[in-house]
Amino acid sequence: MSAQVGIIMGSQSDLKIMNQAAEVLTELGVEYDLTIVSAHRTPHRMVEYAESAKSKGLKVIIAGAGGAAHLPGMVASLTTLPVIGVPVKSSNSIDGWDSVLSILQMPGGVPVATVALDGAKNAGILAAQIIGSHDDTIGDNLAKYKEELKRKVEDSINQL
Amino acid sequence: MSAQVGIIMGSQSDLKIMNQAAEVLTELGVEYDLTIVSAHRTPHRMVEYAESAKSKGLKVIIAGAGGAAHLPGMVASLTTLPVIGVPVKSSNSIDGWDSVLSILQMPGGVPVATVALDGAKNAGILAAQIIGSHDDTIGDNLAKYKEELKRKVEDSINQL
Amino acid sequence: MSAQVGIIMGSQSDLKIMNQAAEVLTELGVEYDLTIVSAHRTPHRMVEYAESAKSKGLKVIIAGAGGAAHLPGMVASLTTLPVIGVPVKSSNSIDGWDSVLSILQMPGGVPVATVALDGAKNAGILAAQIIGSHDDTIGDNLAKYKEELKRKVEDSINQL
Amino acid sequence: MSAQVGIIMGSQSDLKIMNQAAEVLTELGVEYDLTIVSAHRTPHRMVEYAESAKSKGLKVIIAGAGGAAHLPGMVASLTTLPVIGVPVKSSNSIDGWDSVLSILQMPGGVPVATVALDGAKNAGILAAQIIGSHDDTIGDNLAKYKEELKRKVEDSINQL
Amino acid sequence: MSAQVGIIMGSQSDLKIMNQAAEVLTELGVEYDLTIVSAHRTPHRMVEYAESAKSKGLKVIIAGAGGAAHLPGMVASLTTLPVIGVPVKSSNSIDGWDSVLSILQMPGGVPVATVALDGAKNAGILAAQIIGSHDDTIGDNLAKYKEELKRKVEDSINQL
Amino acid sequence: MSAQVGIIMGSQSDLKIMNQAAEVLTELGVEYDLTIVSAHRTPHRMVEYAESAKSKGLKVIIAGAGGAAHLPGMVASLTTLPVIGVPVKSSNSIDGWDSVLSILQMPGGVPVATVALDGAKNAGILAAQIIGSHDDTIGDNLAKYKEELKRKVEDSINQL
Amino acid sequence: MSAQVGIIMGSQSDLKIMNQAAEVLTELGVEYDLTIVSAHRTPHRMVEYAESAKSKGLKVIIAGAGGAAHLPGMVASLTTLPVIGVPVKSSNSIDGWDSVLSILQMPGGVPVATVALDGAKNAGILAAQIIGSHDDTIGDNLAKYKEELKRKVEDSINQL
Amino acid sequence: MSAQVGIIMGSQSDLKIMNQAAEVLTELGVEYDLTIVSAHRTPHRMVEYAESAKSKGLKVIIAGAGGAAHLPGMVASLTTLPVIGVPVKSSNSIDGWDSVLSILQMPGGVPVATVALDGAKNAGILAAQIIGSHDDTIGDNLAKYKEELKRKVEDSINQL
Repeated sequence: MSAQVGIIMGSQSDLKIMNQAAEVLTELGVEYDLTIVSAHRTPHRMVEYAESAKSKGLKVIIAGAGGAAHLPGMVASLTTLPVIGVPVKSSNSIDGWDSVLSILQMPGGVPVATVALDGAKNAGILAAQIIGSHDDTIGDNLAKYKEELKRKVEDSINQL
Repeated sequence: MSAQVGIIMGSQSDLKIMNQAAEVLTELGVEYDLTIVSAHRTPHRMVEYAESAKSKGLKVIIAGAGGAAHLPGMVASLTTLPVIGVPVKSSNSIDGWDSVLSILQMPGGVPVATVALDGAKNAGILAAQIIGSHDDTIGDNLAKYKEELKRKVEDSINQL
Repeated sequence: MSAQVGIIMGSQSDLKIMNQAAEVLTELGVEYDLTIVSAHRTPHRMVEYAESAKSKGLKVIIAGAGGAAHLPGMVASLTTLPVIGVPVKSSNSIDGWDSVLSILQMPGGVPVATVALDGAKNAGILAAQIIGSHDDTIGDNLAKYKEELKRKVEDSINQL
Repeated sequence: MSAQVGIIMGSQSDLKIMNQAAEVLTELGVEYDLTIVSAHRTPHRMVEYAESAKSKGLKVIIAGAGGAAHLPGMVASLTTLPVIGVPVKSSNSIDGWDSVLSILQMPGGVPVATVALDGAKNAGILAAQIIGSHDDTIGDNLAKYKEELKRKVEDSINQL
Repeated sequence: MSAQVGIIMGSQSDLKIMNQAAEVLTELGVEYDLTIVSAHRTPHRMVEYAESAKSKGLKVIIAGAGGAAHLPGMVASLTTLPVIGVPVKSSNSIDGWDSVLSILQMPGGVPVATVALDGAKNAGILAAQIIGSHDDTIGDNLAKYKEELKRKVEDSINQL
Repeated sequence: MSAQVGIIMGSQSDLKIMNQAAEVLTELGVEYDLTIVSAHRTPHRMVEYAESAKSKGLKVIIAGAGGAAHLPGMVASLTTLPVIGVPVKSSNSIDGWDSVLSILQMPGGVPVATVALDGAKNAGILAAQIIGSHDDTIGDNLAKYKEELKRKVEDSINQL
Repeated sequence: MSAQVGIIMGSQSDLKIMNQAAEVLTELGVEYDLTIVSAHRTPHRMVEYAESAKSKGLKVIIAGAGGAAHLPGMVASLTTLPVIGVPVKSSNSIDGWDSVLSILQMPGGVPVATVALDGAKNAGILAAQIIGSHDDTIGDNLAKYKEELKRKVEDSINQL
Repeated sequence: MSAQVGIIMGSQSDLKIMNQAAEVLTELGVEYDLTIVSAHRTPHRMVEYAESAKSKGLKVIIAGAGGAAHLPGMVASLTTLPVIGVPVKSSNSIDGWDSVLSILQMPGGVPVATVALDGAKNAGILAAQIIGSHDDTIGDNLAKYKEELKRKVEDSINQL
């Protein structure tokens, strides 16, 4: 089966965070591909990636970036697929506020589904939820994942 | 056809903002239902709403709230459907920062797809994109909507 | 004597901070119990904990959480007992602002008594003050505690 | 019956907000007295108020102030009663941040139970909860108040 | 003479602010053209505008936008001309912080010369300074403008 | 000669920062005394310190504190001497914002001369300037200090 | 008697706020002069003003400015007199934060005595306190002013 | 050829950051000189530097400073050359906010081209862009630099 989720990030330095999206998608049984697309250094690559995403079979795009983070919003301007934005607290960020606000505060007409600062794991789960709203296998995996979250809390209670 | 998107909000005072989600969903041809569910005043109603959402046929939930805005995150804890959170700049908010942060900064495992402050319109579009990633009619409506955004800019250029 | 104060927290990682509430309660002669209750991973456990708290004899609940910290406010929505919220500067927090605002900024009708960021010790003292306002033994312990605070300052003056 | 809750504020200009505490206490059947005590303009009055509060029969003190709001914390330093602080968004405040932080961020040993910005109504409810944790009549009034909150949401649902 | 400065903005609603750049350029004798280019609604127009700017004879681009303001940075990614960014406090902005941070905090390699919030007038002067650093006529106009600023202060002193 | 400047701080942990005020006063030839006065743990000591300061011959008081920093403002409420406030970035502070705002934002009638976060050195210089505005020896020392600042910059230029 | 306090401001638009310093100085019996000195538009006038202030008999300088407020700090770099900075919430300010931070956060060696946002009245009182620490008449006026503050609170208490 | 860009900074401690401007200018073939000019410790040197910059042949000035960073704005007040400001996150800074706001928020009439926090590299590139808008050799170097940015992204893609 081909990838349903595309994971992109502005820089190799975002990989450590963004891999968490990949890992949870694997855990939830969702196919993805992952690459680097820089809004500011490879703008044409970004345009091409975004415009061809739907025809390549992607259902969701996860885009992570830090500082003045334009990648998620620009990709969203170039596709009708849902785009999930991950604000990354990169080294050039002011405590993450720049990353958060430049992804979250999109103008009317072009939404980005923003998750928490460095929240790549949640971006992966959200992508699976989007797939899972139409795919019962993924939906069931999500239900099991939720059970597992609960079970881990119960384990930690018993260990107190 | 039954509703695919559930729109909820914490208080009647959020209705003016949250109606913008309803309007754009109508424009994009997506069925929705809309009601009030307060995390803090009707917690059991919230649990029931969230837990029955999937079996009622909903594909996405849009939840708006202001101040210490717990509704989107709590609903997300109770369903595997994607939940879109709309931070509302309510009268009891500190410039909207409380609404934004208490929706956005969800812990690992329980994502909320957060949109801009008062961004209910974008929440509606995002919900349609989630539906549209698996429904070509809605996908086409989104493509037309995007064309219309572009055409309006071109109109404003001509009027300069 | 059974516990008068219930200490709960969203995650095992909050234990290091929240134990400070337990320690000061012991010092002040107040019985407590302590456990983990996650709003987002064990929402039903949270509902049950909050709704049975009063009948189990608790007089006050101390709830600590970080990031989008919904536990204190949600517990407050489910009980008429006073709820003390401790914003924890967890690893996924934006400098603690998210924890503070999502606990503090509760809507009219459902208060949370918020203490300083990572202020679990003060949460314990505040719980004792609430017990002590009706219990002279605890009240006397608090008066001695206050004397001790003063004496420690005087010691540090003498050591200058 | 004599007052169980003392409501104080730093300035007459805080009265409009702080009266909301008085009103909800009346609604909940709790006796209070209300006066002006300025930390910065009447410091000796503040010391006397705080030190005599317990012997006058008060169980809780609600203190509201704006800007560099020292009243709640200073009163807390002078009594073992629980002190509830209401940050007021006064005209000389920087969007309320100064009021919030100078009340909330008390050092270890001297807690202030802080409520939301301009949250005097919640301060009143919290005071009633403290009384109610030892007084069944007030506890019952709080349970009815909570029911009423829920009923109002249900009314607004029916009016949609 | 053809335009040396291109003034663009994301939306017609930015025109009131951005016209101040046009006015001061006229005052300083610098030719400009002005139009609307939306990063999010007309991304291809943006690419084309930025890539053709140098060959059309522009020496500087002034780009204004609000909220998640991606226009200045994206234009800067597509040209080697200096780009001046004007953060606009649009109606969908959180007190202007989003506009400021998403323009200012560009990653290494792709600068945007950012001016104050709503500082379109200063953007115009800065553009003239860039032209003026190689054009003595404009340089002289800037010197006269500076004299005039001083003279206006002296007038206001005399009127005290 | 007796002390002209009183240096106080809320806690022994502030000593490392506040000693910088003492050192620069020594360098500038101004007598001082230094002690610990806690607004929240020794409120009566604070009242007595502030009210006797003028009659003991002090001309200026420097007060440092962190978090909800009430010491400078409360001392200012109890004396007509100029009070210099030093916001200390203590371990319980939210990046220093609480310390800054709870010292700076005093209400009309009761000023505190606030210096930069952890700016105890500047507090010492400011105290010397206040003394020096009426004492030529100190005034001359300040002029030499300013020369020395300049000379150190010139040294660093030569070392480039 | 010649002026002991010099009041300056960056722009005529600051006059409404800065006049409050003048008024309270008159009330306290301190001579002042007031004028406009712009750091950015009349830098040479600023240098001359600051360098001649001491020889003209001034004891204190009060400087108010908004936005990137450089006047107080630059004046402080050019004189050994104490300089009081008033952050003005001018129309071009981001909620006053820029004014506050660019006045408060002076580097080691060059203090500015910063008062609250728009706190010109307190700047006047602080200037009088500096004069009053060496002048018993002014000191007595300050003591009476403090009494009056207290009396007004007592009046407002009686009117409740 | 003589220097076209002047790089200055407020303190030797800014050198580590500001050298990044020098390095990229060398890479882009632009001559520069670099020195220390402190607004607060050597104000006359600053006036002289700024006023002689144009006649010495400089086309652009890059000025870096931290905390209450007045150097860029004051230099801009004294020359008609474009001034690029680099906010430095110095040790005495509040997370960089003070540096950013006191450089960015210049009043109308006196712009500073502000780059990201610690963005000295981008300041160098921006200076080269200003030179390059009138100098084809530098313009070509910038085009090659942009190609290199892209090539590095492509390399990192291949290494995934």
